[in-house]
Amino acid sequence: MTDSFAGILNRHIQQPEPIITLLTDFGTRDGFIGVMKGVMMHIAPNARFVDISHDLPPFSIAAASFLLAWSFRYFPPGTVHLCVVDPGVGTSRRVLIAEACGHIFVAPDNGILTPLFDVEYGTSLTAATHQKFWMDKVSHTFHGRDIFAPVAAYLATGVKAGDMGETITDPVRLDSQPLIIQPDSIVCHIQYIDRFGNLITNLDSYTFRSWLRTAGVEPSRLIITWIEHSIQGISRTYGDRNPGEFVAVFNGFDRFEIAINNGNAHKTTRLTMNDRITISIP
Amino acid sequence: MTDSFAGILNRHIQQPEPIITLLTDFGTRDGFIGVMKGVMMHIAPNARFVDISHDLPPFSIAAASFLLAWSFRYFPPGTVHLCVVDPGVGTSRRVLIAEACGHIFVAPDNGILTPLFDVEYGTSLTAATHQKFWMDKVSHTFHGRDIFAPVAAYLATGVKAGDMGETITDPVRLDSQPLIIQPDSIVCHIQYIDRFGNLITNLDSYTFRSWLRTAGVEPSRLIITWIEHSIQGISRTYGDRNPGEFVAVFNGFDRFEIAINNGNAHKTTRLTMNDRITISIP
Amino acid sequence: MTDSFAGILNRHIQQPEPIITLLTDFGTRDGFIGVMKGVMMHIAPNARFVDISHDLPPFSIAAASFLLAWSFRYFPPGTVHLCVVDPGVGTSRRVLIAEACGHIFVAPDNGILTPLFDVEYGTSLTAATHQKFWMDKVSHTFHGRDIFAPVAAYLATGVKAGDMGETITDPVRLDSQPLIIQPDSIVCHIQYIDRFGNLITNLDSYTFRSWLRTAGVEPSRLIITWIEHSIQGISRTYGDRNPGEFVAVFNGFDRFEIAINNGNAHKTTRLTMNDRITISIP
Repeated sequence: MTDSFAGILNRHIQQPEPIITLLTDFGTRDGFIGVMKGVMMHIAPNARFVDISHDLPPFSIAAASFLLAWSFRYFPPGTVHLCVVDPGVGTSRRVLIAEACGHIFVAPDNGILTPLFDVEYGTSLTAATHQKFWMDKVSHTFHGRDIFAPVAAYLATGVKAGDMGETITDPVRLDSQPLIIQPDSIVCHIQYIDRFGNLITNLDSYTFRSWLRTAGVEPSRLIITWIEHSIQGISRTYGDRNPGEFVAVFNGFDRFEIAINNGNAHKTTRLTMNDRITISIP
Repeated sequence: MTDSFAGILNRHIQQPEPIITLLTDFGTRDGFIGVMKGVMMHIAPNARFVDISHDLPPFSIAAASFLLAWSFRYFPPGTVHLCVVDPGVGTSRRVLIAEACGHIFVAPDNGILTPLFDVEYGTSLTAATHQKFWMDKVSHTFHGRDIFAPVAAYLATGVKAGDMGETITDPVRLDSQPLIIQPDSIVCHIQYIDRFGNLITNLDSYTFRSWLRTAGVEPSRLIITWIEHSIQGISRTYGDRNPGEFVAVFNGFDRFEIAINNGNAHKTTRLTMNDRITISIP
Repeated sequence: MTDSFAGILNRHIQQPEPIITLLTDFGTRDGFIGVMKGVMMHIAPNARFVDISHDLPPFSIAAASFLLAWSFRYFPPGTVHLCVVDPGVGTSRRVLIAEACGHIFVAPDNGILTPLFDVEYGTSLTAATHQKFWMDKVSHTFHGRDIFAPVAAYLATGVKAGDMGETITDPVRLDSQPLIIQPDSIVCHIQYIDRFGNLITNLDSYTFRSWLRTAGVEPSRLIITWIEHSIQGISRTYGDRNPGEFVAVFNGFDRFEIAINNGNAHKTTRLTMNDRITISIP
């Protein structure tokens, strides 16, 4: 009787729906993202897709890495995060699966996943070499569709990373400049530039608050310096400054940034990725 | 027996899927929309998301208000409409829930929801003050993720607005210029400018047809005037005029608009939001 | 007993979810796509939507036709493909349903579906004339919402094309220039220009490889010519050439294209749709 129940239910009822997020530099104009979803729907018919961004600067591995490391934590455990920024398409760079923090990541082995490699996460890495999880025909120019999409979809159906290739321990790492934290200053670097030209650094609010407690100074008295320019004070929100003025703030990414209220700090300062910004006690 | 049925079914079967629409000025480049969906998927795992627009002019409350009031009626009753254009993020502006026409709306209390405040809708308004329906940690710069998204998701799961805060009756209202309808003319105002620069007014076709019956004149004889410029006739479709010519038409929003066939009326006329356009009998 | 099962199951269990893809030139800024989805969710509540592109050049029937013919094959059989690029909106151009290759297509009868008309597909065509499958009120300017969306949604629920109108055999066809294949050369034409300005032709890799076997020449020795310009060699990937150089390659669409590595071939060459490119043996 119960068997009969189960039989009918299994034939009729949907399984829980896995989530797959997508982060690429493919744009949304030429149909690439839709086609990747079509490929995945064959393999994981009930997967749900969430687009993170497809309008990253072409080949910007660092920008993709930043957005991925920030965004994944807002999704339920078990989510598969597919990230394809792939200057090495058509070469033999590896296809990487990372399992970290209860999430699964698929990306080219070009450094995108670097923020997950720290030991604190207990990350395990697999090179997805087994071609039975790829499309039958693999092009030289669109591995997003032919390799990365099917690998992500099989992971979403419950296939284990270990069944798709071999464990590796030597992934390509993205160089990054560490925070320099001293009693009277913090040196941080630009890690992402958003669509408004806001300059977003690698300094998170937790690290900053810890430093601030030791430093014993009001945020409004701090001096923020880049090249030969400096401003005073870290604000709570953009609106604390007048339009056209620089504002230093902890933003929606939970990072320290330099912006211009109603302006474009990237164009005005000409600062760019990896450039240095210093916070110091006067 | 039936109980046993119900038990198995409840464990295995999906509940009906609530719909959440999203309308913001956050852009789609920086991952904000994806992260908001991730937050909502924790709370309402089977919610379905539909993007209305994320490329509104930044902080354009009036444009958001126009698109929201137009679009919501095309969705099934019970849909939750999440609208975040929020120049007051980080301040104490209220978080508004409106229930109107069988739909549920969540937005900052800055006037976006004004079209729903008319008594004809029987709208009830709630300030969502109960922080247990917000994220544990609320930033100063991204209430879309930290407050508005979880509030919308809880509403989608069936939590009642009344359980999330207090009824209010004094929402912030957006100023708008009313239609001026006289026997020989209608004065309307620009309420939205679309991506082609078409100038879309607050005159809907129902109001116009009522006036036209009384006026007893052919649409092709009417004079349309702005500043010192005027054209003759309201067309059925854009194609009724040659490329480069002005055309006056009732559009896909069901509103009266001035366009230039294959051109940009906004740039050419320099007319902008709230500017006046007059229709008159010659 | 089994009946009682079925009764309960039918009341509680979701039917399989049909897939509807969307391809338009409506942009994503003004809410048109969201509203079309809302209309379809009334009719086909469990349909899943996949966006192919909404940022095609306005009224570019040829570009839409190219993307549709390429993308549909990556979706599961039974998918409904809704394609609305509709310069004739408001006129009496027909609403076309095509059934081909196990897929269903809905589009204006303006040539978009031309690639499906070949006999090899066994395509059947229907003009969707029965207004009970349209919205009650049909505007002159937004048939995407008022006609095409509901027709696609009814098809997704299982309504037969034959119940929605009459079979036709005289669809509007898009003119296209055929490949000219000779023993020592192939003449192809530009059929799509992507967001990077890459010039994508009607020559697919299967046809090319067949020709190549007969020609008995290395791809690296071939001469590619347009207007008075020529380059030598077809590359495997973009990276085979230095930045700023022309590169000829078979791309992710599986088509022959001319690109400039890190540049814009469309702007540089001034070549455009339907222009000719020749591959020849030196």
